[in-house]
Amino acid sequence: MEKVEPRTLAGTMELLPNEQILFNQIKEKIESTYKKFGFLPLDTPILELSEVLLAKAGGETEKQIYRFNKGDTDLSLRFDLTVPLSKYVAKNYGNLSFPFRRYQIGKVYRGERPQKGRYREFYQCDIDIIGDGELDVINDAELPSVIYTIFKELGFDDFTICINNRKILNGLFENIGQKENSVEILRIIDKIEKIGKEAVIEELEKINVSRESIDKIIEFIEISGTSKEKIEKLKELKINNETFEKGLEELKFVYENIKLFGVPEENYKIDLTIARGLDYYTGTVYETFLNNYREVGSVCSGGRYENLAEYYTNKKLPGVGVSIGLTRLFYKLNELGLIKATKKAISDIIIIPMLEDLSKPIKLATELRNLGINTEIYSNQKKLKAKMKYADKLQIPYVIVIGEDEINSNEIKLKNMETGDEETIELDVKKIADKISFN
Amino acid sequence: MEKVEPRTLAGTMELLPNEQILFNQIKEKIESTYKKFGFLPLDTPILELSEVLLAKAGGETEKQIYRFNKGDTDLSLRFDLTVPLSKYVAKNYGNLSFPFRRYQIGKVYRGERPQKGRYREFYQCDIDIIGDGELDVINDAELPSVIYTIFKELGFDDFTICINNRKILNGLFENIGQKENSVEILRIIDKIEKIGKEAVIEELEKINVSRESIDKIIEFIEISGTSKEKIEKLKELKINNETFEKGLEELKFVYENIKLFGVPEENYKIDLTIARGLDYYTGTVYETFLNNYREVGSVCSGGRYENLAEYYTNKKLPGVGVSIGLTRLFYKLNELGLIKATKKAISDIIIIPMLEDLSKPIKLATELRNLGINTEIYSNQKKLKAKMKYADKLQIPYVIVIGEDEINSNEIKLKNMETGDEETIELDVKKIADKISFN
Repeated sequence: MEKVEPRTLAGTMELLPNEQILFNQIKEKIESTYKKFGFLPLDTPILELSEVLLAKAGGETEKQIYRFNKGDTDLSLRFDLTVPLSKYVAKNYGNLSFPFRRYQIGKVYRGERPQKGRYREFYQCDIDIIGDGELDVINDAELPSVIYTIFKELGFDDFTICINNRKILNGLFENIGQKENSVEILRIIDKIEKIGKEAVIEELEKINVSRESIDKIIEFIEISGTSKEKIEKLKELKINNETFEKGLEELKFVYENIKLFGVPEENYKIDLTIARGLDYYTGTVYETFLNNYREVGSVCSGGRYENLAEYYTNKKLPGVGVSIGLTRLFYKLNELGLIKATKKAISDIIIIPMLEDLSKPIKLATELRNLGINTEIYSNQKKLKAKMKYADKLQIPYVIVIGEDEINSNEIKLKNMETGDEETIELDVKKIADKISFN
Repeated sequence: MEKVEPRTLAGTMELLPNEQILFNQIKEKIESTYKKFGFLPLDTPILELSEVLLAKAGGETEKQIYRFNKGDTDLSLRFDLTVPLSKYVAKNYGNLSFPFRRYQIGKVYRGERPQKGRYREFYQCDIDIIGDGELDVINDAELPSVIYTIFKELGFDDFTICINNRKILNGLFENIGQKENSVEILRIIDKIEKIGKEAVIEELEKINVSRESIDKIIEFIEISGTSKEKIEKLKELKINNETFEKGLEELKFVYENIKLFGVPEENYKIDLTIARGLDYYTGTVYETFLNNYREVGSVCSGGRYENLAEYYTNKKLPGVGVSIGLTRLFYKLNELGLIKATKKAISDIIIIPMLEDLSKPIKLATELRNLGINTEIYSNQKKLKAKMKYADKLQIPYVIVIGEDEINSNEIKLKNMETGDEETIELDVKKIADKISFN
């Protein structure tokens, strides 16, 4: 038979078991943290009606969408988790309790050109808090504590959650008469880390921003010092604009309240260069950086928006949320060797029978499972060496070999595969379980 | 602005939060059981190259596939988890340890006509054990214990795992000279539960099976009695055919060994009418029924196959596996009211501050989370009544209201939302945590 070469589509991730175990541990840590903060689970379809999914989309996004017909139905694969959330909240408005706090961890699809570290199918891990009509700014101060808890859980200490407020930027643009250009200007400013100040100035000139306005923008971006000093300097700019003043007030409030939620001061700061390219955000914005690995880019981003679901409903639904691009994050952290599995194997123990009658070894396995211990039994007919090699390759922490001698003496040797130590103990499920659990 | 009606594609499942919590609990119970038996996690892409995914497909399956072009690339959404497993094992053969035990829980896609309880996007939960060249029949005896553990975990007692062996059927067909028709005959026999004996006979006549052969087939299917009696009666048929004899030997072995793996005798039996329509299976086959809800159909099915990945590799890779169609199962069980959530809410407790200064309530929330308790804080400015209503609607088990009085007296009332009881305790994280954990 002619064989087809087994391969995956470029831009999709498919891992070997040991990497998958690690990936899942990270995913579970993110999920358990989201639950720890009381976010409700959501699982929307990946496949949606194009009319619904693309109610808002346009331009760059639309080009990247996997869109196709099946029969007469025009379908698309979701490209983020925010549009499905909008649809969901509009659809189920009457059945939800507000503020609606939901998390969703799932795959999204973008038909990007494949390149290293760029994915076409990837996991996003989102949380959002949606208000009915209004949503207090205190929620903006809570989200950094979720981000903080996750990255601490993942073993990081030296990371910074950067916050800013889009109203400050928008107010500034209004003040210098550049309101119409604001989306474009924000996109350009957002690149300052990547392309540098001179290139930003050049790009601003290209879209005909006056020299005077550019100076003001740059003066603003270059505000430096501690977060508290930045707040003072923003005040000193004395920009007479309502939006600016509201943004400054919100930023000050969020900054001062993050600490209440248990985030140490070294893990967050005001960064006035953070703008989040999207015109979607209207208030607080977040980006998170691993300080020793800035090249990874922001590992958790998001912000406040005025109106989640305006394409589906007249209800005003403001919200605030953050998202982790897990697939790319995993790829980067794994490449840098920054993550280690808490448990390298799924099985806690493997039982290797070396006799005809499997009844006692199997019984032991069943009893260990009933005590909550992940237990594998190698019941295939193989030589001991092959069986031990299997246990070793899978990095299963404990091995018990059971042969005629063990049955007769009612004693087994519990082998710790990491240290190589063997301990002789009674062939008794409780005693074996105790040994494994204590280690 | 013109609004788009927020809706989902027919045949996809999107749940309200309380249903989603229940769905996730079932999914987690299945996953933790798979892990308890040492199966390794796998997460293959949903989006695959059509050439790879459809190497084998044909006929009915192909028509149902979501297949489309993006640029020059011919893509398909996976329609099961077995083909992706074949591809994976062939692709990563050198990096896997055999027997390769993997579980995968993920969405698959079939462009079916939408009807009640039929899904186009649905979860499958699969386990398979893949051998390198060979795989002992003892593995076929282990899988029922996985099925048993899952349905016990889900709260069922009265269910039956039905087993049969395809070699018995194939040997019979060889013996009566109907080998060429065997796939077709199996498909017809498989429907006996649904359409009855007379209709099966009619359908067999339609494909020109002789009256004499039909009699033998029916005689065979009608073998009744206990599982042990069935084995005896099969022997007594004295069918002189190697395949038949091999099948009978395997069936006997599997039947006798299931007990060793801790499955009580009332939860499994030999059922010679189980054939699994697919020509894919070559040995043991399984179906599982909830005895009081036969109309739900098989809730967990699978079997033994000779060669997993022949379309991708020359390596012979026999395997055995079972699959749970979770989305449909959830729909049916939920409709019948057969499943209850172990925990109705995500949050274990909600803290409701009724004061300006949120520092103490937030600190308490953070400390409770650090002790592993899912804790929500209602930090929005609302009247107490609205806040209590929110807690009640979300069915959060415990509520603490913190106002000036509580701060001054350093005592809070812990309210059990189910019983309505209130208990006054010290405003101390350990004492509060103890109360919640003990209840």
